[in-house]
Parts: sequence; structure tokens; C-alpha cells
Amino acid sequence: MKIAELRVTPVAFADPPLRNSTGVHEPYAIRTIVQVRTDEGLEGAGETYGGQSIVEGIEAARPLVIGQSPTRLECMRMAIRDPHVYSPIEVACLDITGKAMGLSVSELLGGPIRNQVEFSAYLFYKYEDENDDWGRVMDPEAMLREAKRFHRTWGFKCHKLKGGVLKPEEELETLRMLREHFGDSHQLRIDPNGVWAVGTSIRMGKAMAQYNMEYLEDPCSGMAQMAEVRENVPVPLSTNGVVTAWSHFPEAVELGPVDVVLSDHHYWGGLVATKYLGHVCEVLGLGVSMHSNSHLGVSLAAMLHAAAVTPQITYACDSHYPWVKEDVIRGEMFRFQDGCLDVPRGPGLGVEIDPEKLGRLHEKYLRAKQARRDDQRLIRTYEPNWVNRFPRW
Amino acid sequence: MKIAELRVTPVAFADPPLRNSTGVHEPYAIRTIVQVRTDEGLEGAGETYGGQSIVEGIEAARPLVIGQSPTRLECMRMAIRDPHVYSPIEVACLDITGKAMGLSVSELLGGPIRNQVEFSAYLFYKYEDENDDWGRVMDPEAMLREAKRFHRTWGFKCHKLKGGVLKPEEELETLRMLREHFGDSHQLRIDPNGVWAVGTSIRMGKAMAQYNMEYLEDPCSGMAQMAEVRENVPVPLSTNGVVTAWSHFPEAVELGPVDVVLSDHHYWGGLVATKYLGHVCEVLGLGVSMHSNSHLGVSLAAMLHAAAVTPQITYACDSHYPWVKEDVIRGEMFRFQDGCLDVPRGPGLGVEIDPEKLGRLHEKYLRAKQARRDDQRLIRTYEPNWVNRFPRW
Repeated sequence: MKIAELRVTPVAFADPPLRNSTGVHEPYAIRTIVQVRTDEGLEGAGETYGGQSIVEGIEAARPLVIGQSPTRLECMRMAIRDPHVYSPIEVACLDITGKAMGLSVSELLGGPIRNQVEFSAYLFYKYEDENDDWGRVMDPEAMLREAKRFHRTWGFKCHKLKGGVLKPEEELETLRMLREHFGDSHQLRIDPNGVWAVGTSIRMGKAMAQYNMEYLEDPCSGMAQMAEVRENVPVPLSTNGVVTAWSHFPEAVELGPVDVVLSDHHYWGGLVATKYLGHVCEVLGLGVSMHSNSHLGVSLAAMLHAAAVTPQITYACDSHYPWVKEDVIRGEMFRFQDGCLDVPRGPGLGVEIDPEKLGRLHEKYLRAKQARRDDQRLIRTYEPNWVNRFPRW
Repeated sequence: MKIAELRVTPVAFADPPLRNSTGVHEPYAIRTIVQVRTDEGLEGAGETYGGQSIVEGIEAARPLVIGQSPTRLECMRMAIRDPHVYSPIEVACLDITGKAMGLSVSELLGGPIRNQVEFSAYLFYKYEDENDDWGRVMDPEAMLREAKRFHRTWGFKCHKLKGGVLKPEEELETLRMLREHFGDSHQLRIDPNGVWAVGTSIRMGKAMAQYNMEYLEDPCSGMAQMAEVRENVPVPLSTNGVVTAWSHFPEAVELGPVDVVLSDHHYWGGLVATKYLGHVCEVLGLGVSMHSNSHLGVSLAAMLHAAAVTPQITYACDSHYPWVKEDVIRGEMFRFQDGCLDVPRGPGLGVEIDPEKLGRLHEKYLRAKQARRDDQRLIRTYEPNWVNRFPRW
């Protein structure tokens, strides 16, 4: 069985005006859908970041993929090199091999060690928008309402606050209200996206310890700065900012900037690489959680299989998916229950691309004319006096 | 498909009186053959260390294996815990899954990145024995003859001298003669099995640098001692003595005792674990080679697949197999050519157990009455004044 065809389709889907430390989400999030087809007619799907450069990267990998057996992952990984480009191709190949064997992707990868994956509620401060009914969430009270609705609707018991948006004291007050409302059986984490100064990070890290935080993700930027914060705060630190590639490990081992590393098969280089990451972290005494960007159901299925086969992922995984209202997958969208999703059991990934839906979201991409994500572009329509400071707080 | 049967068969096979730093090989080497059978009648084979305790360990794992799907490797690994016990079970399960899918084990594990695996000539000092025609090899000249015959017969271009046997100066002279005879296109490594003192290791490491050594394996024992030697000699150090388990990595990262870690799927916990080891070592900037004990063809097939799917194994692998004259596998024994073996392509491992041969070697085991390997047992019949000193030199 040989790979005969590789299709790359950029897509866009509606995204609410979610805030983060560097700006606001644009009306459309962009992603890239990869479809691989064999000479025997089997099809596999993958999904990765959006943007012109990733599309070009995958197109450039075409000669390394066409004619190859979908089981020759290691050869393709070594030839393609860029983990962002390799990842959706690996997922699509695993999807194909799984279908050929009648096995789910997790069964192919050593078997699932869990049948359900727990997720965190991804709580964003946000502006109001005619297309969404979440309203404006720019103070602690509104955020508590958002969190209650997340919990009520999908049952999440772990709350991740995207921070670095309001004044640190207001975000601390948000954490206080969340802890007070949900009680000690729930988990609480905050991610200021690296925009706090070291001093602010230490002050806040000490202050939030009373709220029994699961972890504090990337309070500041820089490996040495994170290590300094870690030495001075009693809250575990996590990162998808300073340890995001294999080459970061030697320095991380020396400086010790974090307790927990965030996996993400899109940038670590696929599902097998997620298993590697779990193992590397276990060997080095680090915990493993999972990071997310805005994504569709193909990525979500892959994330479920990644979490299912990586025993070291003991934290609830992040996902932007609750904010998504349209998808490229056939049938119903995924729906969280009790904060969890079942690991798909069907052969391969367990999701199929719906060509009509794919076409619609590709049309949106063409209309959106976003060659790359830029959270800065629209922020001044909401905050006329916005200045991009770093560190911000 | 569920695992219905697990059979454990201890075997013994003739072994010449090979010397090492702690004694001499007994007339029989012992191993354990594991056979797994599914409810659909598919059979898989694994092989591991011999001895009463390993047989008992595998028997004790039986309830964790029976009824399980052979694809549920991660679950079995986590339940069984002991990598020595898990390893042959994993190999047998991969053999089954490969056969069920019509894929070789390496194709299952991400695809081979090489079709041939290079091995080193495993050169032992040895005593004479009526059952072998290699004669006595207890001085540099005799060892050069042995190495020439290894090269002539099997084409090895990498020569591994099992050291720690003669006086260090005589082993240095052996290296000099090997380098002089084979020239610079061949590789040379020596393994004194940890019995040199730190001072001897440094003196010898400096002296052998002129012979362009590939690496010096475990000159002395202890992580700190190895690190001290490494700081003082210009020859790369390798180990199957101080970094042999995942738990050794944190200290190894701190002390830096070696340049190269030896893989061995039997004690690192299987073929997938070998891929993990390759990755961990790559991340930490360490090279990877492969260790061997006396073994039969089932282990050799597994070693070939391990090397085929682990890109980080860039050194010729060790194998005792040239010293073996009988096997449990169907058909011909493996035969090295140009120092290499082809990676088996057939479904699964690519070797099958011959029940008659297995029965014969099991009979030998029962007659040999060796509950464990003991290189001390016979050394005084050859060296009446033997005293087990440590360090020896």
C-alpha cells in the first residue's frame, strides 16, 4: 500500500472575540486540513495550524510522502524534519493504517490506557459579539458566570483561566471567586501567556498559592526567568512557552524552569512524539499536560488518541473546542460530558472529513483572507489606546 | 483477539569457555523462551535471560497477560512493571500483531529506517575446549588470530574486545595489533566490564587514544568514577553498567559519566522502550549502541527490528551469536555477511520456534541444572589461584 495523493486545504471557522495577553482573536480562526489517500483508496485525515507558511511547508513535503508506505513514519519524520509539517501527515497515515488493520489509532500505538480523556474548561476574558451569546467577560464577576456556564453545560471540573489580560490583582480576584464557588474538588490553573514581569510573577504566584492552584502556566517569558519564579513560588509551574522543542531540554534540565511540560502533537511532531515526550518527561521527573490552540474535530480526535496512549498525561487536557460552532467532520460535533470525551474506538482516528463542510470552511478561508493569525489586528477596535507592552504587567 | 495461552520454556545451549573479568562462561548458556498464543490460534515468540527468577517472574505475570489483547502493550507494561519480564511478552505480542496485520514488527513500529543492521565482532579471550575449534586465546597474538577469523568468516569491520581479563598492558597491545592489522577503516572498542580502577582507566584511556578507539565501555564501575575517567581521557566512554535503567538518567545528566548508552531491549523493557531510549538519548545529546548477552535467534530477530526502528542506534550492535551453534528457530540459523544481517521482512518477527529444537534445548536445560548464570563456578578449574578481586587491575 502506497500513498498516492496528498491534499492540503486551508479552512477558516468563526471564533468569538476571545482575549489574551497580546490581543484578541479575529472573527475567523484558520487551520489546515490534510488528506492522504493510498493507491488502494484508503483515506486518512490530519489537521494542523493555519496559515500560508504551513500550507507551503506541507506542499513542499509532498515528494517525501507520495509513493511511501503509510507505515514508514520514521522515514517520513526524518525526511520532513519540521514537526509542524510532519504531524498532520503522521496522523493521516496512522488513520489509514488503523483503517487498513481495523484498529483505532490508539490501539495501533500500544493501546489506550484510558477510555475517556478529561479536559479543562478553557476560560477566556472576551468582548461581546453579535455572533455569540457569551457576552462581555472583562471582570471577575463575568468570568465566574462564564465558568459556571462551562461547568453547567459540559461538566468541566478543571478550570483554566487565560490570564495576562486584566490587571494581575483582578485575575487573582477571579481565581479567588472560582475557588470559592467550585470548592476544593475542582482544579484551577491560570496562564498569563508569559506577560508578567518576574517580580509580578513571584508576587502573584505567592498570592495564588492560597487558592490551591493545580499549576501556573508561563507567568513570564524566558527559561532563566521562569526558573527564578519557580524557585520563589510554592505553586507548580507549567509551560508551552519555554520548553516547546526537543532542543530545549538540555537547558531546561540545567535551569529547572518548570514542573509540568505541555504536550501538543501539532508542534512536538505527532502522536508517537507525544509518547516520546511523556517518556522523556517521566525520565526527567517532569509532569505532562496538554496544550491547545483553536482547532477542529480532526485535531480533537488526534488529541484524544494522544492522551489515551500517553500514561504520563495525568492532567486534564486543554481544548478551545467548546468555543467552536462548526466543524469539518461528518455527523455531530464532539460534545463534552462531565468534562470528558470518549476516545474514539472506530478504525483509525474515528472521525471522517465531510467534503461539503470542508468546502464551506475553505470558502470562508478564501473570504477571510488571513494568511496568518494576528491577535493584534483588531484589538484597537476594542481598546483604542492599546499599546503592545512586554512584559505587560 | 485475546491472549489465551502463555508458555515459558527455559533452555540451555552449548557455550565455549569464554573469559570475562569475573570468570568464565559455563558449558551451557541459559535462556528463557516465551510463547504467546491467541484465541484465534496466532502464535508469537519472545526470548529473554535465563534463570529461575526470570521464569518465576514471567509465570507471575500470567494473569496480567491472559485475556488481554496483544495490542494492549502499554497496559501490560504498566501492570507488569519489571522490564525484564515485560520485554519477551511485548516481543511475542508484536510478533502476533504483525502476523495478524501481515506486517513485520519493524513496519508496525514506525517502519524500518535501515534494511540491514551492522554488528561488531564480539572478541573474547578464552580457554580451549574439546567442543570448539577456536582453541586457547589468552594473549594478543591469539586474539589477533581470532579477530582475523571473525573477519574472514563473517566480514565484521567493527571489533569489540571483551577486556578486563589480561593485564591492561596486554590488552592495550592487543588493541595495537588489531589496529595495525585492520587499518583505520575498521572500528575498535574495548569493554573491561568495569574492573579497572579509576587510575588504570585513565592511564589506559589516554594510552589507547592513539589507536583511534570508537569507544571505551565501562572501564570502571560507578557513575562518579566513570565521570572522573571521562573528564580525563580523550576516548568516548560507553556503558551498560552505570546507565541501565530510566531511573539512572537524572544522576547521569548531572554527572555526565558517558558519551554513549547501550540499548538492550531485554532490560530496557522491549522494542518500543528501545525507541524511547533512542529518543531520550538524542534529547540529552548521548549516542546509542546495543549490548548483548549470550542469546538465540528469537532475541536476534528482535534486536534486528529494534535496531531497524531506532535511528539513534548509529553504532554496530554487539551480539554473542557467532559463538552459538544451536538454536530454537525453524530452518537455518542467522549467518552474518559483511558483518551485517538483513532485517527480517516476513510478518511479525520473521522467525518461528521449532518445537523439536525447543524440546531439545529444554532437555539440555533440565540436565544442566543451572538455576542462574555463574561465571565464577568453573574459573578455578582453569585458574587454580583465582581470587575475585574488585577492581581487578
